[in-house]
Amino acid sequence: MRDIDNTVLSSRVRLARNVAGLPFPHKLESEAAFGFMKKVSDLLKNTDRFSLYLMSRLDDLRKKALVERHLISPDLTKNSRCGAVMINADESVAVMLNEEDHIREQSIVKGFDISGAYERVRRVDDRIISGVSLAYDDALGFLTSCPTNVGTGMRASVMMFLPALTRSGKMPSLVKALTAKKMTVRGIYGEGSENSGYLYQISNKISLGYGEEEILRSVNTAAVRLCEFEAEERQALYQGNKIALTDRIMRAKGILQNAYVLPLGEFFERFADVKTGVALGLIKCRDVGRLNSFLTDVLPANLTLKRGAAMTETEREIFRAEYTAKNLAEILN
Amino acid sequence: MRDIDNTVLSSRVRLARNVAGLPFPHKLESEAAFGFMKKVSDLLKNTDRFSLYLMSRLDDLRKKALVERHLISPDLTKNSRCGAVMINADESVAVMLNEEDHIREQSIVKGFDISGAYERVRRVDDRIISGVSLAYDDALGFLTSCPTNVGTGMRASVMMFLPALTRSGKMPSLVKALTAKKMTVRGIYGEGSENSGYLYQISNKISLGYGEEEILRSVNTAAVRLCEFEAEERQALYQGNKIALTDRIMRAKGILQNAYVLPLGEFFERFADVKTGVALGLIKCRDVGRLNSFLTDVLPANLTLKRGAAMTETEREIFRAEYTAKNLAEILN
Repeated sequence: MRDIDNTVLSSRVRLARNVAGLPFPHKLESEAAFGFMKKVSDLLKNTDRFSLYLMSRLDDLRKKALVERHLISPDLTKNSRCGAVMINADESVAVMLNEEDHIREQSIVKGFDISGAYERVRRVDDRIISGVSLAYDDALGFLTSCPTNVGTGMRASVMMFLPALTRSGKMPSLVKALTAKKMTVRGIYGEGSENSGYLYQISNKISLGYGEEEILRSVNTAAVRLCEFEAEERQALYQGNKIALTDRIMRAKGILQNAYVLPLGEFFERFADVKTGVALGLIKCRDVGRLNSFLTDVLPANLTLKRGAAMTETEREIFRAEYTAKNLAEILN
Repeated sequence: MRDIDNTVLSSRVRLARNVAGLPFPHKLESEAAFGFMKKVSDLLKNTDRFSLYLMSRLDDLRKKALVERHLISPDLTKNSRCGAVMINADESVAVMLNEEDHIREQSIVKGFDISGAYERVRRVDDRIISGVSLAYDDALGFLTSCPTNVGTGMRASVMMFLPALTRSGKMPSLVKALTAKKMTVRGIYGEGSENSGYLYQISNKISLGYGEEEILRSVNTAAVRLCEFEAEERQALYQGNKIALTDRIMRAKGILQNAYVLPLGEFFERFADVKTGVALGLIKCRDVGRLNSFLTDVLPANLTLKRGAAMTETEREIFRAEYTAKNLAEILN
């Protein structure tokens, strides 16, 4: 396993598109909104088994679960008038309709594969361009609701898990350095007050004045560098206190596999230790992709959907413990 | 599994005997001491594969290991002039020579089986009586160095593991009640400052004026009652907080099976939780006898002998963790 596949959880490319001649979504009449929605739906529905979900028809739990899986934005859920999303069968592509822009095409793939994500979203983009007249200016490029997205309309990002840099307190200075290089680093927090604390989304800040390849390359470079820093920091922490760190890692594994009650906040802490153990080779993991998917699977809404029934907070913590123990046992030795 | 087999770790019967016409060991000439020692040795050596160990020939580590296994007393180790012990092959019988009395015959068997221990020690006693003239008074019975042992010379005891009664703070009043019934309750501590805190030896206080059967019965009754109290207290603790106790128990199991460093004090705490889990049926254990043997196996000297090499404190804590994880995995599901 490459270290970067352990550190980069997922790679994402998003393209912002708008329909020519229509007001932006927040000022759009429902009729017009549903008009282009039908067009996009017709273009995609027979490819890659896309399904259409209208925000007006989804209950809160399912909306929250899609947000937890990063398939839709919290903002989209607020547009219950004409907000919608099309998602393909393996959930690697999601096309939000009537979010900030008319169309937001995005592909998320597991692990470190920004160009793979770009290839996927480009195929969807080509298909949409083939049937929808998009707002495009020869000088500026694609026109978008927010000026920062004008141009390529592209945002490429990686989701990184950085416990060593976070714990050693080095993230703030790295965020500053990356910001100076026109990158945006955003700490990703779970729903509610709990947060993982170790998750960061690194993306390009501006999409105007740079070509697609340039953007992909810049995010790629930033991810590789951050991964190297994380590996150095992890080794430094380990070499500085091998016994205590090994003990903490192995206990974290034991607790995740045996606890009867598992609050989300504690889950993140133990999980960070287990991930560190995998990165250091102290724990063998047969499927890092599946390991990473815990970070979504154990969140409240997704856990509730897996259970198939509403739960009290305590019941959820018990189910989280059960789910974690069972599924970890299948991928850790 | 009977609950009492989980609570009573071992049963022991000891008979104090002295050779007629000889001063007690602390005033005994070496020549005389070795004289009766040879006699006893000759009587036992061809039965049950007894081996003779002279304190003068054992190194400190091996002496300490025998003390940890309750096969000899700390006092015996101090008599490096003519102190000795004969131990049979399965270590269920140990005959100390020149401890406080000339001969201290004892049998320790696993679990709750006081009469089984008595049967074993009686066979050894018969054999010794057949060849050694013992100090015996028709009115008083067997004569011993300490007056409390005069009479039957017998002390019957059980080693009990009582985490619920200890944690709920009920032991002091129970000890008082048992003391009033002429029983002795002694908290058993490990070597050094660490202690299990949950181990108690319950025995008869006086051996004069009571018949053997009466003593066995009284210890038996005390053990059964204490076991019932422990079970009631355990259930009360469990019913009062099922979720939190289950969580603590399962985490303790996970930590004992995964920790990389395991200090003795922590071992005892986690072990008490695991034992409680077994008693409550939350953890399945295929071999309670082997589970109980951890309480001896992980002590410093025995652990060092198992490793076969001297260790620093940290190395020992690492080896204890390794030993515990490996052996627990074989008996817990």
